[in-house]
Amino acid sequence: MIIIGERINGMFTDVKDAIASKNKQPIQELARKQTEAGAAYLDVNVGTAAADQEGTMQWLVETIQSAEGGCSTPLCLDSQKPSVIAAGLKVINAETGAILNSTPLNKKTDEEILDKYIEMAEQTGPKVSIITLTMDKNGVPQDVDTRVAIAAEIVQKAMEKGFDTQRLFIDPIVLPVKVPNAQVQAGNLLAAMDQIKYLADPAPHMTVGLSNVSQGASERSLINRIFLTMAMSHGLDSAIADALYENLINVVATFDMLMIKEIYSDSFLKLYTAANKA
Amino acid sequence: MIIIGERINGMFTDVKDAIASKNKQPIQELARKQTEAGAAYLDVNVGTAAADQEGTMQWLVETIQSAEGGCSTPLCLDSQKPSVIAAGLKVINAETGAILNSTPLNKKTDEEILDKYIEMAEQTGPKVSIITLTMDKNGVPQDVDTRVAIAAEIVQKAMEKGFDTQRLFIDPIVLPVKVPNAQVQAGNLLAAMDQIKYLADPAPHMTVGLSNVSQGASERSLINRIFLTMAMSHGLDSAIADALYENLINVVATFDMLMIKEIYSDSFLKLYTAANKA
Repeated sequence: MIIIGERINGMFTDVKDAIASKNKQPIQELARKQTEAGAAYLDVNVGTAAADQEGTMQWLVETIQSAEGGCSTPLCLDSQKPSVIAAGLKVINAETGAILNSTPLNKKTDEEILDKYIEMAEQTGPKVSIITLTMDKNGVPQDVDTRVAIAAEIVQKAMEKGFDTQRLFIDPIVLPVKVPNAQVQAGNLLAAMDQIKYLADPAPHMTVGLSNVSQGASERSLINRIFLTMAMSHGLDSAIADALYENLINVVATFDMLMIKEIYSDSFLKLYTAANKA
Repeated sequence: MIIIGERINGMFTDVKDAIASKNKQPIQELARKQTEAGAAYLDVNVGTAAADQEGTMQWLVETIQSAEGGCSTPLCLDSQKPSVIAAGLKVINAETGAILNSTPLNKKTDEEILDKYIEMAEQTGPKVSIITLTMDKNGVPQDVDTRVAIAAEIVQKAMEKGFDTQRLFIDPIVLPVKVPNAQVQAGNLLAAMDQIKYLADPAPHMTVGLSNVSQGASERSLINRIFLTMAMSHGLDSAIADALYENLINVVATFDMLMIKEIYSDSFLKLYTAANKA
């Protein structure tokens, strides 16, 4: 399970304050802690407060990469603006990997935006992946079939461009259960994932912004953990999630053990965390 | 989700002691509490300590049914000996339902034991179901295909006998993850369930003895909850489980909400329990 640690995001107060005061310490501490907890990637999102989003993205990337003792955990540059991601790419060390987060297939204007992201990834390095949303010029699909159809177009586009489908993280888009019309989407997502995993061999990765499912709801942690388990058992192999929340990591460790990705031992939870720290 | 409350079982010390001293109060209390917590059925298992297993089964059934204020929660008579189940059926009130727990398809001796259970169920009443294990004269299958093949034979046998397939609770048999050769079975079970649910329309029920998965393991509660979630998302609609364990019931409530069997509201957990109490 590829956990993309969600904490370096300007929507969190501690990160927002660190950005405002150009205080590196809290950012570097979050990078270290998430890495130790098992995050394979660190999401980097400047949030909405910073006036200079491009400059802030570069400052965050450089801050993480210049941590004392070094932080080589690959980064996941997260912005709705391609120019912000492009700015981050200018200073990123992508040798061990990176993710561009995220792009739809195309835009309302018919602009073939995925093409541009594939170019950006190729120019940066061979281990750079892209989170692609099952979303096109018509917006977020409400049903299973349209999600799968868009995912198929994404995979086909990657193949045409000679872009390894294992560098795709397809995100079928989780909507909050609290929104009445969106509640139906949890089941739809599982059905879509059952099909998306067969679109290529080897399969593209699948990821979700996990916390979205419980946005505004009560019992957020419980909803996140149950939905994550359901989604993993339908092929989800990545999530943007809170790596620092031990209960969530324990869910992943237990799932991996039950699916014999890890052998059972009485200390399987501790061993899982230790393996990630190593 | 049909929870079969597991607590009235002679393997638990409080039940064993109540049986030994013919003390009705703890048994009736367990019946009431499990019903309130959301158990649709109450499993009744005399355990191994009682010398007169048939007589003890009858005493337990009569004790539950004669509780002050009445307990009309249907019972699930649980024994490996058909004579013990038959004894319970002589005194059971099966108007609102009952389950015979459990039978393999056939025995090492080639005896067609499922046939006899179908007869017992038919003779007792129209709402009496059977838990059938995906197990035959060769024992417990180790792979997906044999599990599905046996389940198909079970369904076919029921159809031949005119026994409604919705009165079948097919149990694909959970083995403990702690046993090295059995760990692989968790994933096999999910794959088998994906197919078993399509063997008839309407589908047979599927159930598991949930606690088996964590037998002898550490982190039992976590393993049970994660495995239950995985299995539910592959079609499991029943489990023999601890209805008194709130965290487990919350898992079921959250799963049902995410699959819009229940509408989301901020108090969805409380409403789930309240609905079961009503």
